[in-house]
Amino acid sequence: MITLSILGSTGSIGRSTLDIVRAHPGRFRVLALAAGKNAGIAMEQAREFRPEMLSVANEIYPEIRDALAGSGIRVLAGLDGACAVSACADASVLLSAIVGEAGLAPTWEGILPGRIIALANKETLVAGGEAVVRRVKAKGARLMPVDSEHSAIHQAMRGHPWSRVRRVILTASGGPMFGRTRKELQSVTVEEALNHPTWKMGPKITVDSATLMNKGLEIIEAKWLFDLSPRQIEVVVHRQSIIHSMVEFVDGSFLAQLGSPDMRGPISYAISGEDRLDLDVKTLDFPAIAQLTFHRPDHEAFPSIGFAFRALEKGGQASIWLNAANELAVQAFLDKKIPFDGISRVQELLLEEAPENPALSLEEIQLSSVRARKVAGEKIEEMVPYHKVATVS
Amino acid sequence: MITLSILGSTGSIGRSTLDIVRAHPGRFRVLALAAGKNAGIAMEQAREFRPEMLSVANEIYPEIRDALAGSGIRVLAGLDGACAVSACADASVLLSAIVGEAGLAPTWEGILPGRIIALANKETLVAGGEAVVRRVKAKGARLMPVDSEHSAIHQAMRGHPWSRVRRVILTASGGPMFGRTRKELQSVTVEEALNHPTWKMGPKITVDSATLMNKGLEIIEAKWLFDLSPRQIEVVVHRQSIIHSMVEFVDGSFLAQLGSPDMRGPISYAISGEDRLDLDVKTLDFPAIAQLTFHRPDHEAFPSIGFAFRALEKGGQASIWLNAANELAVQAFLDKKIPFDGISRVQELLLEEAPENPALSLEEIQLSSVRARKVAGEKIEEMVPYHKVATVS
Repeated sequence: MITLSILGSTGSIGRSTLDIVRAHPGRFRVLALAAGKNAGIAMEQAREFRPEMLSVANEIYPEIRDALAGSGIRVLAGLDGACAVSACADASVLLSAIVGEAGLAPTWEGILPGRIIALANKETLVAGGEAVVRRVKAKGARLMPVDSEHSAIHQAMRGHPWSRVRRVILTASGGPMFGRTRKELQSVTVEEALNHPTWKMGPKITVDSATLMNKGLEIIEAKWLFDLSPRQIEVVVHRQSIIHSMVEFVDGSFLAQLGSPDMRGPISYAISGEDRLDLDVKTLDFPAIAQLTFHRPDHEAFPSIGFAFRALEKGGQASIWLNAANELAVQAFLDKKIPFDGISRVQELLLEEAPENPALSLEEIQLSSVRARKVAGEKIEEMVPYHKVATVS
Repeated sequence: MITLSILGSTGSIGRSTLDIVRAHPGRFRVLALAAGKNAGIAMEQAREFRPEMLSVANEIYPEIRDALAGSGIRVLAGLDGACAVSACADASVLLSAIVGEAGLAPTWEGILPGRIIALANKETLVAGGEAVVRRVKAKGARLMPVDSEHSAIHQAMRGHPWSRVRRVILTASGGPMFGRTRKELQSVTVEEALNHPTWKMGPKITVDSATLMNKGLEIIEAKWLFDLSPRQIEVVVHRQSIIHSMVEFVDGSFLAQLGSPDMRGPISYAISGEDRLDLDVKTLDFPAIAQLTFHRPDHEAFPSIGFAFRALEKGGQASIWLNAANELAVQAFLDKKIPFDGISRVQELLLEEAPENPALSLEEIQLSSVRARKVAGEKIEEMVPYHKVATVS
């Protein structure tokens, strides 16, 4: 029996995880859930999976607490609640799927001896980087990637020595803006940016996919997950999202992982400790798919990939600042405050100003992020507003 | 130090193997070589690699024996010579790359305790099937596939449990006749059939690639190498020969091995005992490759794939008879005795007449093959001659 603590249970990854749990009764037990603001889904999950502990967003806490009074489920709220959920010592697996840097602190608290940390929250490694990797090692926990790209590399590398790897190729769908020029991207609307061709995800990640910052974050994540140098990482645009990523060995041989775009695959591989569960994931009929295509990323139109490499080369707090810049800028774009291409401009400005000394504890990382957000907020205020360019299209 | 005995050293696979040995001095030592009829290459190999033993075709034996007199190299000939080479007890790895059923007996003799059998000779498993697998197990040897397709599966499966595999997909280049109809194939000339789009190989294997019988043999080989049921094997035409084969797991995840068409990859993986040597194999630049395509095989025009599945379902001596039919028919086609589509007709006739009791020892297999060849010879004599149809084109 695998015992689970889930951070972000009402999000896309959290719900897919619970689909897997539901389909494999007797295999998993849900001990603790940290939900978001959706009271309806949180209540349904609590009633179906009967966790020992449920943490929710502060806004819905009174409602949920009252509704679950007498149920035996301990109801908690906010960051403290999420940290209590992740620190739930009986869970053998922590699924970390809170979106954004908000996922860092509870994930950090959940790095416990012998535990599998199934990581869907990119920022834990983007902002946490070396500090998180050190903590995982020191505590004797194991990181299992849930991102489809890193899961692909993790699956392909099973049984193979990293010492024989030449490089990894992260595939990118190219996002809904693929093929547009830098100039055309100035007038992209929020509605367009949220229309992802392949994966159904939350708004933050969907915009990250449109700017290719999603891939930028994955580059940084790959560096820390697999102890790679930036030169060992390449990004290739692959519109069909069938090949989820690849590894090249020193003998010129590549191993690739492929599959239908369905997050249950990577999630189940991670939470089961690298086992393969029977899933009703759509199989691939290659003759029906007919072709898989590859393009070089357009670094002029989508500078975020280059920023990620620059952040890795610069080191220090660059990744924290780049990530904080992105989070604020994406929110400002979603709030229709800044235009689409303002996102990468905020990224670049913060990358330049990031301090060069590293942040090596949770507190230092959080402080760095607070400072970065302040600077990013100022840059956003100085920017041309959204309506001036987005209404052009 | 890996010590090597090589069956088929002057063929395409044998020469590629010695290229690897040459490029990795100190890593390999060649103990015994079984060459073919090319005296020039055999002499060069003997002088360069200084094996303890060299076996050659009977035709060139006197010449080689005299030329190497006093060299300290023991010179042998024919089947006995090849068997002595493969039985060379000090070699930790036997590379079996004699083409056709002629490779079976020396490979059989070379199945020794603790030894790696790097298998490029398809017929060892096509004709030998269960008997070979049993012998390998009983002797405590290890089979390592050298065919690019089986090597791909072997590489992809490293570290993964077979119990979680749903099926394997063998990719096929489609050969030089891809896209032709059954009717158009009647008039294919020997010259056309020998013009393979991707791989440079010997004439027998090139014709097998044109008829897709090569894939048929690989289906049978895969069944025995990986203990699969016929239903777990699918063939997909992939013109670029970049994806060398794939495995699908029960969770809907696929692992594929990819690479430039260069046999040094699969050979070095096998002879090094699953290590990865630095090879100057051309890397894959996916955006430059631009696309990978997939088609269903045309079973009407290329019935050999279906025959292989039927042989596996029928069992008994069906694979031995199918293979013997193919060897004789291909030779008859190369000799311009029968037309291109006569090859599959001979295959089908022998498949129907194959005895249903299994052949479970080397002697039984060889007797079965002798009988099959006699029947195949008769069918070939009855056939419309090559020039009646091939000159039409």
